[in-house]
Amino acid sequence: MRYFDQVIIDVNLATMDPAQPAAYGAIYDAAVALLDGNIAWLGPKNELPEFDTLATPVISGKGKWLTPGLIDCHTHLVFGGSRAKEFEMRLQGVSYQEIAAQGGGIVSTVKATRAADRESLFVAANKRLTALFNEGVTTLEIKSGYGLDLESEIKMLEVAKLLDKHHPITIKTTFLGAHAVPPEYKGDADGYIDLVCEQMLPKIAELGLADAVDAFCEGVGFSNAQTRRVFEKAKALGLPVKLHAEQLSNLAGAQLVAEFNGLSADHIEFLDEAGVKAMAAAGTVAVLLPGAFYVLRETQLPPIELLKQYQVPIAISTDFNPGTSPICSLKLMLNMACTLFRMTPEEALAGVTVHAAKALGCVDRGMLAVGKRADLALWDIEHPAELAYQFGVNPLTQLWINGKTSITR
Amino acid sequence: MRYFDQVIIDVNLATMDPAQPAAYGAIYDAAVALLDGNIAWLGPKNELPEFDTLATPVISGKGKWLTPGLIDCHTHLVFGGSRAKEFEMRLQGVSYQEIAAQGGGIVSTVKATRAADRESLFVAANKRLTALFNEGVTTLEIKSGYGLDLESEIKMLEVAKLLDKHHPITIKTTFLGAHAVPPEYKGDADGYIDLVCEQMLPKIAELGLADAVDAFCEGVGFSNAQTRRVFEKAKALGLPVKLHAEQLSNLAGAQLVAEFNGLSADHIEFLDEAGVKAMAAAGTVAVLLPGAFYVLRETQLPPIELLKQYQVPIAISTDFNPGTSPICSLKLMLNMACTLFRMTPEEALAGVTVHAAKALGCVDRGMLAVGKRADLALWDIEHPAELAYQFGVNPLTQLWINGKTSITR
Ligand SMILES: [Zn+2]
Ligand SMILES: [Zn+2]
Repeated sequence: MRYFDQVIIDVNLATMDPAQPAAYGAIYDAAVALLDGNIAWLGPKNELPEFDTLATPVISGKGKWLTPGLIDCHTHLVFGGSRAKEFEMRLQGVSYQEIAAQGGGIVSTVKATRAADRESLFVAANKRLTALFNEGVTTLEIKSGYGLDLESEIKMLEVAKLLDKHHPITIKTTFLGAHAVPPEYKGDADGYIDLVCEQMLPKIAELGLADAVDAFCEGVGFSNAQTRRVFEKAKALGLPVKLHAEQLSNLAGAQLVAEFNGLSADHIEFLDEAGVKAMAAAGTVAVLLPGAFYVLRETQLPPIELLKQYQVPIAISTDFNPGTSPICSLKLMLNMACTLFRMTPEEALAGVTVHAAKALGCVDRGMLAVGKRADLALWDIEHPAELAYQFGVNPLTQLWINGKTSITR
Repeated sequence: MRYFDQVIIDVNLATMDPAQPAAYGAIYDAAVALLDGNIAWLGPKNELPEFDTLATPVISGKGKWLTPGLIDCHTHLVFGGSRAKEFEMRLQGVSYQEIAAQGGGIVSTVKATRAADRESLFVAANKRLTALFNEGVTTLEIKSGYGLDLESEIKMLEVAKLLDKHHPITIKTTFLGAHAVPPEYKGDADGYIDLVCEQMLPKIAELGLADAVDAFCEGVGFSNAQTRRVFEKAKALGLPVKLHAEQLSNLAGAQLVAEFNGLSADHIEFLDEAGVKAMAAAGTVAVLLPGAFYVLRETQLPPIELLKQYQVPIAISTDFNPGTSPICSLKLMLNMACTLFRMTPEEALAGVTVHAAKALGCVDRGMLAVGKRADLALWDIEHPAELAYQFGVNPLTQLWINGKTSITR
């Protein structure tokens, strides 16, 4: 007789496990058994092994659907201030130049983030985190990149670590010092990259504050050569890399991140076939960000057919940030991935589970399979396509993180 | 000394009252006094008249913003079934013809709605209603139009009336018998319009189930002449009219609804200047539905500049329905009105308050002014532009309907 911590019966599973042949890796009328924070057994309910039914809590899923907990693999969740006023000015017809002259744009967020104390950053970010948690998110990435000096970048990452400590969601942190050139380095991007590589990266690695290193490789960000310097240093320090690449133009950022066996290339609207091939060869995940695509009213679609053709895994994320994606809902991104990118609901769900896990290097989660972490979401739906199809009514009824029940309603 | 039921102090007001000169009709550091479900006094806090401070509850808004309760003036909230499977099939590349041949499209919702009992319709609609309520909606319109026979249309409207009775939100009902030609009248739209005019409309008017009458005037719906017949009958029965007009083509529906001094013309992507002029002359409101525009990936924008030029009030609504707008969030529509239609946050907020009230003929609400109904929403924001700018974190902290506190958190 086997021992489990908890058994869930009378559920349909969208395992998202490629080893399961049905759409969504589905197993109908199933059971899942949890032990020590992991999935110890799953399969059709009538094959559930004998277990100590007196000692083990058994939960009925009442015919609902169980999926892996959702994973948001690209966010800028920690920042100071708000860009609402700038949003309004743009819609009132004020030009970008004028807004920039008034201190708007990313510089305003950098200023507010530098000025903010840890507590106010924590409180604001915690609200956003809780909104995502309430829609089923169990693992979330947070980038730095609005400090742009050593002290403020450390502050952002420490707040992200505090969120990890105090909130049930698991947080992965990413150092994004090379997000923008700070005002004090205006006209000297290379000088700022010196600072990033020689002072910021070593210190942040020493403090253990970052799980990965990211950069913004773009005409309005950093060049391919500058990004390479950041990646060389990250590699020397043993940190994996990822990249904001090919969002507004093609700087061959995807090839660069692939050359460093990077975790992911993100945005990639302007990615070409050479970049797709390089990503496929390196096992680099494509992270698509429909929220930013929507907010910026982009028309250049990411090369989804090519990515599928070369079997590059596609993740979907919010890119939640105050400038280009102030939309704090991963569930809405499922709908936008389908509506704007014409992905199927199954592809979209894979994008926030199994592929998002790969994009974070967290291969211990993102699918329902024996040995995976018991991050589970139970939904009051009749078919998993509903998760992408409808928005507004929250069908989440229970959430487990690492085997512990975190939400019941 | 004056008597009030309740006084709210230390709030900033976005009154949305055109008589107030500031943007959003704003009054800073204000107070609002409620009596018998209405606003009895409002203005700067330091001008608040003397009142019985011992007997009157005083609530501090802690410097937050108070707006009118939000109004969703165009929804199809009551229906049976789900169209998730159809959504998925379309994204898998199945053609419209094939989906229709498999019983998909509006016909599937009609079938499911006819088969559903009142209780299941109520339970499903109540969830949607509660989602909207939680974002600050205090008045909402519900259309029939998935029954398409007398019995089922009555059933839909009775469920809407039950929701009004059991939920704090005030519901306005609209009879939309002329939504589509039901299967049993296929090829005989005129015959179905006979049924609508001769049997359905008189009975529904007699039962007092509808506050207004709507139709779908479109190539795939009903002709201008057929719509006119419905409007003539509505007029004879003393019911105001409104219209799904000019969504996919221009059938001069806006002129028609204006000719009948209608409440609103809704969708109106293909509206021309003649239609705008007619609406302006008749006082007919333009109801824009960015959710359907988004879901259908439309490219033809409604003529917003013309509407403004002729001072036609513009309302914004969800058009929540299972086919073309399964997005149950009025707050997201504020963002979409700005992002997709380039309206300003102030115009968008007017669209879900003062102009939405006019679209429902409810001139007793939709703005903060003396004598108006005390439907109020208190938001934890620093500027009203935030309501349209960010999405996902719900800033609603308190909601009053008819002077009664309905949500506090
Ligand atoms: Zn980003
Ligand atoms: Zn409609």
